[in-house]
Amino acid sequence: MKVGGTHYRSIWPEADGTVSVIDQTALPHAFKTARLRTAAEAADAIRGMVVRGAPLIGATAAYGLALALRSDPSDAALETACRMLLATRPTAVNLRWALDDVRAHVRGLAPAERAAAAWQRAGAICEEDVAINRAIGEHGLGLIRAAQAKAGGRAMNILTHCNAGWLATVDYGTALSPIYLAHDAGLPVHVWVDETRPRNQGASLTAWELGAHGVPHTVIVDNAGGHLMQHGRVDLCIVGTDRTTATGDVANKIGTYLKALAAYDNDVPFYVALPSPTIDWTIADGVEEIEIEERDPAEVTRIAGRADSGSTVAVQLTPDGTPAANFGFDVTPARLVTALITERGVCAASRAGLEGLFPERRARASA
Amino acid sequence: MKVGGTHYRSIWPEADGTVSVIDQTALPHAFKTARLRTAAEAADAIRGMVVRGAPLIGATAAYGLALALRSDPSDAALETACRMLLATRPTAVNLRWALDDVRAHVRGLAPAERAAAAWQRAGAICEEDVAINRAIGEHGLGLIRAAQAKAGGRAMNILTHCNAGWLATVDYGTALSPIYLAHDAGLPVHVWVDETRPRNQGASLTAWELGAHGVPHTVIVDNAGGHLMQHGRVDLCIVGTDRTTATGDVANKIGTYLKALAAYDNDVPFYVALPSPTIDWTIADGVEEIEIEERDPAEVTRIAGRADSGSTVAVQLTPDGTPAANFGFDVTPARLVTALITERGVCAASRAGLEGLFPERRARASA
Repeated sequence: MKVGGTHYRSIWPEADGTVSVIDQTALPHAFKTARLRTAAEAADAIRGMVVRGAPLIGATAAYGLALALRSDPSDAALETACRMLLATRPTAVNLRWALDDVRAHVRGLAPAERAAAAWQRAGAICEEDVAINRAIGEHGLGLIRAAQAKAGGRAMNILTHCNAGWLATVDYGTALSPIYLAHDAGLPVHVWVDETRPRNQGASLTAWELGAHGVPHTVIVDNAGGHLMQHGRVDLCIVGTDRTTATGDVANKIGTYLKALAAYDNDVPFYVALPSPTIDWTIADGVEEIEIEERDPAEVTRIAGRADSGSTVAVQLTPDGTPAANFGFDVTPARLVTALITERGVCAASRAGLEGLFPERRARASA
Repeated sequence: MKVGGTHYRSIWPEADGTVSVIDQTALPHAFKTARLRTAAEAADAIRGMVVRGAPLIGATAAYGLALALRSDPSDAALETACRMLLATRPTAVNLRWALDDVRAHVRGLAPAERAAAAWQRAGAICEEDVAINRAIGEHGLGLIRAAQAKAGGRAMNILTHCNAGWLATVDYGTALSPIYLAHDAGLPVHVWVDETRPRNQGASLTAWELGAHGVPHTVIVDNAGGHLMQHGRVDLCIVGTDRTTATGDVANKIGTYLKALAAYDNDVPFYVALPSPTIDWTIADGVEEIEIEERDPAEVTRIAGRADSGSTVAVQLTPDGTPAANFGFDVTPARLVTALITERGVCAASRAGLEGLFPERRARASA
């Protein structure tokens, strides 16, 4: 999407064989790009959260492998680079998937051909991500158009939680993709951006990318969405998901469940946008079966921002020694989800709904 | 309640005729008291939020009037002092009530008797507040005892939102009063403290006062309560209220409604503790009739905390120029409230429930 009128992706290959990324550690207070010249620099970028978001991490790792093979295309170097890149975020599913994909792609080739093939494959992984997200956007745009038509054409107020935007992917994003397409198509939209404590991805990243592209938006604290829905000030909600069960339960950033409850209580449609690789077809009960990561309590007791001096400062919010707990995600049961928006179309948040769009999964289940 | 083993109230008269208060602007990072010597100092303390919380503001204003009358007991001085004190927080209902009460009390007296009478009346207002809160605590304690017995005697996990503790009143607090009485009676309790963005009264004041008194607690972000309830980790919720309708709807700090929805969805009892003066008998539909104050957006885009240097620093969380909206309260419909805890006892959140405890209101309505 656009930054200052110029189109950017979150990662792109340069003509000189290096890779550029947007340095997300500098956001939202400064827009900087970083250049990755080696596999080690790609690994550092993932580990240091210069890049974040599952699809973008995968794309960065794929380019990292290509950079490794350029300096040493041997089998041994391939395996070493895979291990090093995988170790940066060992639980990231897309990271492993992208590395396996590139490795499988180049392994049968002569060493001299590997670097170029890996470079090309990394580019293809990026294009696939963009295509999936663009398709999610088109399907979601249909929902926004329909809601707007029903409301007599006025501007649509859309609430989102966390950052499921283009900064987490290669372009478009997932939850924000329909919003960008609506805005670019001239449909008036305004986004209520949940701050998303404790890491504030909404207040920082979502607010930044919507602002950079020119989409009207307003940041609110996570506590405010229910009040807005009670007063008819939210037309629809669109959020992303980290993991979706075969029955349509969604594990997303902590607090998503509370917004889904409020949407249900106020007859506001609650949509979840997802690329199909986030569907875990082996799981049926999200609340029971999905283990929720507990993160560092310091993310709750401290927060960083820009001081008036211009430098980034972390401050303590709680009294000394206060215990805190920090749960990364929660599970929104399918009964609260109006529909899922996938790259193949929109479906009910249910096994039947998902199997309707992904019939190959039904065949596999009954085999 | 206790600070470092010593019993404190949030305001107390000194033998030398001055008034001491806890300086709440220094919390949670430092415990300081401040001395009020004149009506102007009392007004400054209210205006500067050295004291906050409706009952405490009322008590401070009452003492402020007594201090004014000591230097000039004339009718003109009485009226001037009332106006000055009222102007500090013009929308605070308790402030007006306390000033009207003291004025009515002294107006018929000879000027020479007024200062002493006002001083005594201010003390009585404080004692009345303590008695009401203590009674709320006793009634709420019965609910905690019953829940604990039903759960086989294990520790009760209680979630609260914002600060409805002793710092907002003269002592005990409202929502926290049952928790203090349970703890002091030896019932094991643990409190989940909602951070309560944007002003973080939970993470700062509630965490501080529970810690100072020795009550086990854990701070969580406002997003986390639903997840905890889904997993059986909350036994009951107790919150306060700023305004309660005659039908049992409650207007409390923004985000209360989201927690009530989660409690309802997970069969967790949701109690609201309130002194009866917060009941507005003229209002029947909270969502429709209670106007929600919009506050400074800078409370959302900026936050203050203690930097590693030890000084308090405000930092900006959002990109430059990001629009933000800041709603102070939301309304939780009575259908989501398990029961109201008042100084007269526990009742259903309904007109019938409230009129059962306050039959004089029923008589007035049918007159």
